[in-house]
Amino acid sequence: MADLVDSAIEVELGAIFADARRRAGDLDPHYAALWHTLAKQSSGGKRIRPQLVRLAYAGFGGIEEDLATRVAVAFELLHTAFLIHDDVIDRDTVRRGGPNVAARFAARAIRYGTDARTSDIWGETAAVLAGDLALSRAHREIALLPVEATRRARLLDILDRAVFVSAAGELADVVNAGEVEPTSMSRVLATLEQKTAVYSFECPLAAGAVLAGAPDASIAALERFGRFIGVAFQITDDILGVFGDPAVTGKSISSDLREGKRTALIAHAATTAEWPRIAVGLGDPALEDAEAEDMRTALRDCGALDAAMRLADEHVTLALYELEAGNLPEPLASELAAIARRAVERAR
Amino acid sequence: MADLVDSAIEVELGAIFADARRRAGDLDPHYAALWHTLAKQSSGGKRIRPQLVRLAYAGFGGIEEDLATRVAVAFELLHTAFLIHDDVIDRDTVRRGGPNVAARFAARAIRYGTDARTSDIWGETAAVLAGDLALSRAHREIALLPVEATRRARLLDILDRAVFVSAAGELADVVNAGEVEPTSMSRVLATLEQKTAVYSFECPLAAGAVLAGAPDASIAALERFGRFIGVAFQITDDILGVFGDPAVTGKSISSDLREGKRTALIAHAATTAEWPRIAVGLGDPALEDAEAEDMRTALRDCGALDAAMRLADEHVTLALYELEAGNLPEPLASELAAIARRAVERAR
Repeated sequence: MADLVDSAIEVELGAIFADARRRAGDLDPHYAALWHTLAKQSSGGKRIRPQLVRLAYAGFGGIEEDLATRVAVAFELLHTAFLIHDDVIDRDTVRRGGPNVAARFAARAIRYGTDARTSDIWGETAAVLAGDLALSRAHREIALLPVEATRRARLLDILDRAVFVSAAGELADVVNAGEVEPTSMSRVLATLEQKTAVYSFECPLAAGAVLAGAPDASIAALERFGRFIGVAFQITDDILGVFGDPAVTGKSISSDLREGKRTALIAHAATTAEWPRIAVGLGDPALEDAEAEDMRTALRDCGALDAAMRLADEHVTLALYELEAGNLPEPLASELAAIARRAVERAR
Repeated sequence: MADLVDSAIEVELGAIFADARRRAGDLDPHYAALWHTLAKQSSGGKRIRPQLVRLAYAGFGGIEEDLATRVAVAFELLHTAFLIHDDVIDRDTVRRGGPNVAARFAARAIRYGTDARTSDIWGETAAVLAGDLALSRAHREIALLPVEATRRARLLDILDRAVFVSAAGELADVVNAGEVEPTSMSRVLATLEQKTAVYSFECPLAAGAVLAGAPDASIAALERFGRFIGVAFQITDDILGVFGDPAVTGKSISSDLREGKRTALIAHAATTAEWPRIAVGLGDPALEDAEAEDMRTALRDCGALDAAMRLADEHVTLALYELEAGNLPEPLASELAAIARRAVERAR
């Protein structure tokens, strides 16, 4: 069942990109190539958000799989848009272990004989536009959903919240990284709730439940569950970003330290005596791997790794509590509980 | 009447920004400031697109001003989003003679004590996000429009076309500027039709007409009129970008030459003996005003200025022909004819 629905999502996404590429090709071959890089960027994701939409929808008795697929696809496109624009903001060129939209399009420019400066401009242009196109398509999926007006309006409100709050989180992330003072743990947690938990967990779950006509109290419980599990998930991701296996995470374990990313690890470390060993290299674009290794040791020594793992566990506990208190139907409650536990197990 | 409706658009835009600022303030003061810069960026525009929506709607007998206002606002927000992301792509800091979103937010970063590199990052982040937020809000205005499903779907298709084709044009603009060979006149015209005419003229007119329930043949005529007049308008804008009065246009008359923007002026010049005098400085970021003055003289001498003006006039003629052939109702036909003529008179 899960596989069937997952393949429905791939089919729908594939159809959207194929149609857009065809239309783009009528305008300009470079534009068709842009859609090709956008499709590439979208593929290879874990499709967490579509799965959450589907789980919540089926969990509350929804049976119109095509409706759920379209809402699921909207959240996956939203995610793609955010990743692409996040890379523009961070000037990143790698995503999921491969070249991102900007890098692919910059390489295309080089093949067309441009100089390095021009190829950078092509890459950034492609990334800004690809994000806009994916974002627009996400809106369109919900706007055209053939359900009654009140239900569609609620789904549009959820989408609006996803965009509105994520933008706040993305901005806060950048502001935090630029501040001289270490970011407090409460600010780190608020930022990652805004930047990730709301659009990746709360909103997809709420959208699936609203689409299925779930009771308001259940939707509210799901939203609280989503925020807690989203925070647990992101703390774990940030741990893996520094201590994980690059072959699994698809990114360098030095890059978060080089960027000076303000994670739970860093917020804890800033309150300990080991802080100077970490602060010295944090946010240094020229940080070498050996120096990063020393920072990792310091993060272990000062208890930051343990503290971050504990914090993730606590958020799982809170999420499970919401599940129980929300009295959600089975098998939805058990499935969500399993997801909650897996969120932190990745870092063991 | 026109003034009443115009003020309705300002009131609606003002309400959207005020509401968003309030919600943003609940999350973070920097985020509220981001919405403030977005509102500032939106103000001071000529509101051409809202006026076209309104004209077409009233011209076909539409009387529900609140519906027309919402569609008009959607196109103005779309325009704001495109301007902001266009500035990200071009690394511009000035818009309409004042600091743009990126510049305002970079200045805020400096006030908060960041270094120059960090303030640039704040500025770019704010601009990427502000564009996403304006774009999302444009979609939301149409998606929530209280009209029957088939009419809303047609409006969503027009919005989709506006986004889809503009992205192609924006990409083509950047690709053209990066190419070593001069861009042909036909490519220049295709690019500015895609980048400007479709979303700024064709789509607002079509949306107003669809909202009012105009006959399909009239909508098609309006769309053709919109594309021709949009091209005439942009050729004229590009003339003013090089030969205009900076006090009126709000931009330096050297910036288009510094950027190497491929306009009708440049495409014509490339076919003449004066080309080396122009090519030498075109796209040189360090171009000095005296060198730009010499390029302007060469553009006059080689007939590029006359040719571009003639081309704009020809597009006005074609637009007026479409108006007549389309047999559009009065006073709409006369009002549109007047707009068409004014489009090119600015450069006399």
